Amino acid sequence: MENLSKNKLKYLRSLRLKKGRDENGCFVIEGQKMVLEALDLIPERVLEVFAINPNDFEKFSVALTKVTPKELEQISSFKTPNKVVAIIKTKVTPVSGKGFGLVLDTVQDPGNLGTIIRMADWFGIPEIICSKETADCLNPKVIQASMGSIFRIAVHYTDLNEFLAKDSRPKYGALLQGENVYSSQLNPNGLLIMGNEGQGISSDIQYFINHPITIPRFGEAESLNVSTATAILLSEFFRTQS
Amino acid sequence: MENLSKNKLKYLRSLRLKKGRDENGCFVIEGQKMVLEALDLIPERVLEVFAINPNDFEKFSVALTKVTPKELEQISSFKTPNKVVAIIKTKVTPVSGKGFGLVLDTVQDPGNLGTIIRMADWFGIPEIICSKETADCLNPKVIQASMGSIFRIAVHYTDLNEFLAKDSRPKYGALLQGENVYSSQLNPNGLLIMGNEGQGISSDIQYFINHPITIPRFGEAESLNVSTATAILLSEFFRTQS
Repeated sequence: MENLSKNKLKYLRSLRLKKGRDENGCFVIEGQKMVLEALDLIPERVLEVFAINPNDFEKFSVALTKVTPKELEQISSFKTPNKVVAIIKTKVTPVSGKGFGLVLDTVQDPGNLGTIIRMADWFGIPEIICSKETADCLNPKVIQASMGSIFRIAVHYTDLNEFLAKDSRPKYGALLQGENVYSSQLNPNGLLIMGNEGQGISSDIQYFINHPITIPRFGEAESLNVSTATAILLSEFFRTQS
Repeated sequence: MENLSKNKLKYLRSLRLKKGRDENGCFVIEGQKMVLEALDLIPERVLEVFAINPNDFEKFSVALTKVTPKELEQISSFKTPNKVVAIIKTKVTPVSGKGFGLVLDTVQDPGNLGTIIRMADWFGIPEIICSKETADCLNPKVIQASMGSIFRIAVHYTDLNEFLAKDSRPKYGALLQGENVYSSQLNPNGLLIMGNEGQGISSDIQYFINHPITIPRFGEAESLNVSTATAILLSEFFRTQS
C-alpha cells in the first residue's frame, strides 16, 4: 500500500481539466458505487484506486493508495467529496457507422450530456457522436450524471460536417418546425441529431437533416430541455420494438 | 428610484431559504428573461425589481431599485449572478382534482423538479402534486431549470397519503415491475405517480397504485433519471392526442 505523493496529487488534480485528461489519456471517477462498477466492468482500465478506507478494495488486484479526507478533498471535483476515486484509462474506438446513432451538436451542459449517456445506455444505443464543442464526456459532472453508463457507451468527438457528409443513414433532426414525431415513420437504423441548449441545431448541420421531427406542444412552455426532448424522441424510435 | 437599504438586502437574502420564503409569502427570480416574463405574465405578483441597469425596466409600473454588482452578488443564489432579480408574491391555489395530474413522491433534486415543471408546461399539465419532502419549487435552482414555467404551473405540497386516499382518478405509478407502458391503456384523466431519485415510490404510496407501468429497457443502464422517465411517460399519455 502506497501513500499519496505530492507528484501524484498534482497529477490527479491535472485530470480535473480536459487538457490534463487529453494529455494523459486518463480520467478520474468518484464514489464507491462508480469505482466498484468500473472494477467489475472494465478492470483492465482501472489504473489506480485512492481510498480513505483501502480495506474495501484489497480484494481487487489493482494499485491502491490510502488517502486522507483532506487529500481527497483536493482531488475531488465535488463540494462533498466521495470516499474513493480511481484513475481510468481512456478508451478510444472508431465510430461503427451501423445501427442507430445519436448525434449531439454542441450540447454544452454536463448534466444534460450525462443524462443523455444514461438514457442511451437504457435504450441500448452503443454510441453517441458529438461535435467537438459538446461538453467533454470525461468531465466529472458528466460522469456523475451518467451513473456508470459512461463505461458502456462510446462517446465520439468529431467534425460533424465531415461525419454527416459521409454517413448514408437516414438523418432525423429535432427541429421546432419538424413533422409530428408521433405520426412519423422512424427508421431504427437512422441517426437522430439533437442540438445545443440555447441555439438548437446549427444551420450547417441542419443542412444534412432529411427527416425533421418535432414533439407536439400541448401547453405553453417555449421549449423542452434537450435531455427531455432526447428522451421522448428515443422512446419513439424504440417503442415499437418492445 | 430607490437605492438598496441594509434591511432590504437582509430581507432579500432571507428569501434564499425556504424558511424565509414561507414566512414572507414571497420568492426571488433572477435574470433578464425571467423577470421580463414575470412582468408580462403575472405583473400583479411582481412586488419589486432590483437591477444593475434600472433603465431597462422603467417602462413597467413596478417598484424599482438600483443595485450595484456587488449587492446583486450578495442577493443571488448563483455563482455567476444575473443583472436583475425580482421579488414575486407566492400564489397558493387549491388542488383542482380534475384532468391529468402529475404526483411527485419526494423528488429531491432541484434540477429534476425544475425540468419536470418545464415539461409539464409543454404537455399542458396544469398542476403537480408533491409530497412535503419534495424539493421546494421556489428554490432558485428549481425556478432556473423551470425556465419560466413556474409562472404557469401550480405546484402543490400535501400529505400524499391523504390526497391519494381521497382522489378517485385512476392511479398510474412508475415501477420497475410494472406493465410495459408502450402497450398499456393510459387514461389521460389519471394521476401519474413518480418516485424519489434513489428510492423510487415509497411503499405506502405504492399501495395506492392501480396501474403500475414501466419503460422497457433495451440496454444495460440500471435505471433512468426521474426527469427522463417522467418525460417518456408523459409523452405516452399525450401522444395519441396529437
